Amino acid sequence: MLGGYAGKILDVNLENGELKDIPLDEEVLRMYLGGKGLGLKLIYNELRDDIKPFDPDNLLVFVTGPATGAKVPTSGRYHILTSKSPLTGAVGSGNSGGKWGPFLKFAGYDAVVIRGISDKPAYLSIINGKAELVEAPDIWGMTVTAVTPELIKRTGVDPKKTSVACIGPAGENLISMACIMNDEYRTAGRTGSGAVMGSKKLKAILVSGNERPKSANSDMLVEKVAESMDLIRESPVTGPKGGLHVYGTAVLVNIVNAHGAYSSRNFQNSCFTEADEQSGERLTATYLVGTTGCWGCPIVCGRKSSVPEGPFSIRYTEGPEYETIFALGSNCGVKELDAVVKANHFCNEFGIDTISMGGTIACAMELVEKEKIPEEDLQGLNLKFGDAGAMVECVWRTAYKSGFGADLALGSRKLAEKYQAPEISINVKGMELPAYDPRPIQGIGLEYATANRGGDHVYGYTIPAEILGIPKKLDPYSIEGKPEWTIYMQDMDSAINSTVICLFTGFALGLPQYAGMLEAITGMKLDADKLLKIGERITNLERLINNRYGFDRTEDILPRRFIAEPVSKGPSKGQVSLVPEMIDRYYSLRGWVDGKPTEEKLKELGIA
Amino acid sequence: MLGGYAGKILDVNLENGELKDIPLDEEVLRMYLGGKGLGLKLIYNELRDDIKPFDPDNLLVFVTGPATGAKVPTSGRYHILTSKSPLTGAVGSGNSGGKWGPFLKFAGYDAVVIRGISDKPAYLSIINGKAELVEAPDIWGMTVTAVTPELIKRTGVDPKKTSVACIGPAGENLISMACIMNDEYRTAGRTGSGAVMGSKKLKAILVSGNERPKSANSDMLVEKVAESMDLIRESPVTGPKGGLHVYGTAVLVNIVNAHGAYSSRNFQNSCFTEADEQSGERLTATYLVGTTGCWGCPIVCGRKSSVPEGPFSIRYTEGPEYETIFALGSNCGVKELDAVVKANHFCNEFGIDTISMGGTIACAMELVEKEKIPEEDLQGLNLKFGDAGAMVECVWRTAYKSGFGADLALGSRKLAEKYQAPEISINVKGMELPAYDPRPIQGIGLEYATANRGGDHVYGYTIPAEILGIPKKLDPYSIEGKPEWTIYMQDMDSAINSTVICLFTGFALGLPQYAGMLEAITGMKLDADKLLKIGERITNLERLINNRYGFDRTEDILPRRFIAEPVSKGPSKGQVSLVPEMIDRYYSLRGWVDGKPTEEKLKELGIA
Repeated sequence: MLGGYAGKILDVNLENGELKDIPLDEEVLRMYLGGKGLGLKLIYNELRDDIKPFDPDNLLVFVTGPATGAKVPTSGRYHILTSKSPLTGAVGSGNSGGKWGPFLKFAGYDAVVIRGISDKPAYLSIINGKAELVEAPDIWGMTVTAVTPELIKRTGVDPKKTSVACIGPAGENLISMACIMNDEYRTAGRTGSGAVMGSKKLKAILVSGNERPKSANSDMLVEKVAESMDLIRESPVTGPKGGLHVYGTAVLVNIVNAHGAYSSRNFQNSCFTEADEQSGERLTATYLVGTTGCWGCPIVCGRKSSVPEGPFSIRYTEGPEYETIFALGSNCGVKELDAVVKANHFCNEFGIDTISMGGTIACAMELVEKEKIPEEDLQGLNLKFGDAGAMVECVWRTAYKSGFGADLALGSRKLAEKYQAPEISINVKGMELPAYDPRPIQGIGLEYATANRGGDHVYGYTIPAEILGIPKKLDPYSIEGKPEWTIYMQDMDSAINSTVICLFTGFALGLPQYAGMLEAITGMKLDADKLLKIGERITNLERLINNRYGFDRTEDILPRRFIAEPVSKGPSKGQVSLVPEMIDRYYSLRGWVDGKPTEEKLKELGIA
Repeated sequence: MLGGYAGKILDVNLENGELKDIPLDEEVLRMYLGGKGLGLKLIYNELRDDIKPFDPDNLLVFVTGPATGAKVPTSGRYHILTSKSPLTGAVGSGNSGGKWGPFLKFAGYDAVVIRGISDKPAYLSIINGKAELVEAPDIWGMTVTAVTPELIKRTGVDPKKTSVACIGPAGENLISMACIMNDEYRTAGRTGSGAVMGSKKLKAILVSGNERPKSANSDMLVEKVAESMDLIRESPVTGPKGGLHVYGTAVLVNIVNAHGAYSSRNFQNSCFTEADEQSGERLTATYLVGTTGCWGCPIVCGRKSSVPEGPFSIRYTEGPEYETIFALGSNCGVKELDAVVKANHFCNEFGIDTISMGGTIACAMELVEKEKIPEEDLQGLNLKFGDAGAMVECVWRTAYKSGFGADLALGSRKLAEKYQAPEISINVKGMELPAYDPRPIQGIGLEYATANRGGDHVYGYTIPAEILGIPKKLDPYSIEGKPEWTIYMQDMDSAINSTVICLFTGFALGLPQYAGMLEAITGMKLDADKLLKIGERITNLERLINNRYGFDRTEDILPRRFIAEPVSKGPSKGQVSLVPEMIDRYYSLRGWVDGKPTEEKLKELGIA
């Protein structure tokens, strides 16, 4: 076997309770590495074009990569996939930190594939190689922060060697923006995998173990890691005095706002006057009580926070991240950082993706502003841009489908369709957009339009180059070279998410470093080009699955607002997105026709 | 048949879907009138000593009286009973206004008896004499404010002639302080009848109709009503310029606080420095947007309110009442009236008794203050006296058993027992106490201790005499004559709640007026003494049922705090409750031994 892997997959059939060990196929690993790539391959092997999100045979896959749990920086990550996302209808996919990934591997498995629907609510425990399905109707309904310590207590394992991934009430209630949380505050947030887990009546997976896989070449690994660690430490972004550690991801608030790309009021504006009141600097000065990092991470961007008093008081929580502050803050016109801290906590506690939640609330607020929602449907809820209390209230109402929350639980696309104003949902493929206005950042707009999982920023993260000049400065207003760069970042990020390590290393490292560390771990012969090719293969396989579901170029588009409405004020005034001018070149470079890989391309990549 | 009655009871068996008409027994009406009395008799007829609250044969009874829907003032009321309350273990009982009672009668029935448990969630409709059980799993989970208009729309009836009584999520989730709401904002709040309805999977009862029962003597009724109306109009409490109409029930806040009986911080203090900030006067000056009255009511004490902005904004709601402001406000140390308005709305929306909710939150806050609850159990909730946001959060968390809400949902008695500090729950027979500190008001203390449904103030409302001097001034600090007065008020209130009209008429009317109007409606020969005897019979029957469940004098006690801890500051400094000195005289006057009616007493009253 290649180094770095545990060597087997746990296959769980909830229909009959059968648990099977499936050995890893080395050839598949050489083509897809692990993480996102391996998960997509497992899904592709059993793909049914007509599958529905809550069908028993919608696979739910948890998968680590060769670097997960290895002695490399940021090796605390894993990937979650579903055959079909309830939010987008495309393949579902997300990536999470914490320590769940490493401890799955230390418990003896590289991946878990969940199929079927359990008769009664249950959880899965994998402890030192022994997997067990346990019926536990009494934990159904528990919040994430309640069930996590409860299961650790119940199984009697050492908390230090254990991690729990679970759903909250949102997943149980099949809400399409529900996510799976691990270690209470970490999540593969997007595409609604929590609802798929909820549909299977699987509340949690507890992993615990000691077994660390060996690397193929330890000496080489030490050398390669030392090189990467130097680069990470020296970076003004990832180093110990860097923005991510000192201010958290929210360090981006003021930077992106200054660029006129920190949208507000459901992307009606492209900057937010009160941005500084919710910046990383402000968070550090107010509610920050400590920092926290994922397993094996030298960057430590996680925030521990507390709001000691006021209407949004909370004794202890973690976060919020940049994306969350945007989504629940400026995008809802809300300036109060304490309200965002509180709403973020609710999202974690109930298992809701903060970006989709904020995008849906913002959509609802614009629907109210434009008088699309009858007063009686609101049942008293004061859904106005800037109403911090209403924003916070929307979160728990969504989790419990309570009152107007039953409408919010639809997600922004179906909500806006219900009220006959589909253009007010700011989504791509049904997924709400993240925290960069695409009008003044052309590359990220192309990523939003073409990302396989819907309106996404981290499966082709062009922001370092376009905003920060890392690894090189690209003019954000220009489309020159952007299709090329977006493709490069998409394929590199596919490789990183299959490795699996943290994308934030990309502020300091590049393909040569990733390839070097991977070679040392696995023993595969790798270099930058080979690794990028693996990434391209993964991106194409993901695209192919979506094509099988009927997706084509008609879905590779941005909301009309970004094409038809130039930015009205602020630093980026006058900008529009030029995705329509870039898309054909993007397809041509990809070897795609109408959003679909050609036979030749698939052959070239070795995809059946 | 006697005048004023529709003449029949609808008997609903949810087990097999059978609906039966049961004719009223005139002899029973002469002994128990209707409302509370008739409901108790129906329950007593089928009583099983070992019944449990969520057993199928726990009867849920909705019952009007001869005055309900008649042309008399405040005839909009009805009574709800359950064989056994999930909160107290005693017989469950509550009284509500709005217009549900009259429209049940106009639909052709005096009462509805619900037995069994439905297989699927269902609602009952009674439209112009035709009753129908309708399976409707899709309305399960809806809030009170959502399901009420939905059912009116679905059945296509005239909203003006229709009323809906229903449960919210709290009832569905079997929370022992859940109530049944009618007309969205009215409720028979106490003893957890909503949880019994939830256990039966019955979401709602819609009533609609036109059929008005005739009175026995219309001329006499016109005359008697004219006399009563004059008294109501002339009263400084119930008249058009009276406190109840101008300021709502919250007119009592400043009055009771000035007396040193407006408790705060879980009854640790007996007055509240910030009382004026949550007074009826303040409500009128801030969030009041209109007034509203129950069916047939000349007093119109209901409040329409709105909080246009701030962290507790709400576009429209009704209330809050005096009891609610105390329970969710001062008793939780919360001064912010907008937070109380919001929390009250949540209680209505989710179907929760505001008094028990506030008492339970206050208990939890004191448990935290005294360090009885481990930090990890709170999961971030900032449960401190005075934290308005935490108080509001507790309400919806209770409805959904969300996080620490699962503990709050136990009610204060079980909560305090769980954390091994039972003395911190301020309850009698498991029911949280209302808004009058019993130390400086001796009569109400005796009522709290002896009321059959637990810690109650309106089944023997001594406050008018002890605080307002109506109909005569009694020294509140003195126990002189208090057993007599408490018994008198308990029996009179039993009669009023069986009539059924509003207790607030008691600020202006007395037994002669009630007897006169009842005689004109029914044709029974009545006077003050006869009516009081009926009241006594009802009080005794209720006590007898509780005795069958095992209740005796050991349950007729106040929380230790009121006996052992004198009021520490404020106008009533130094007072303690003297219930232990009054209880034997109370029993002796009652003809009870150790809290149980003797055979002689029962015989005298004609109770089998």
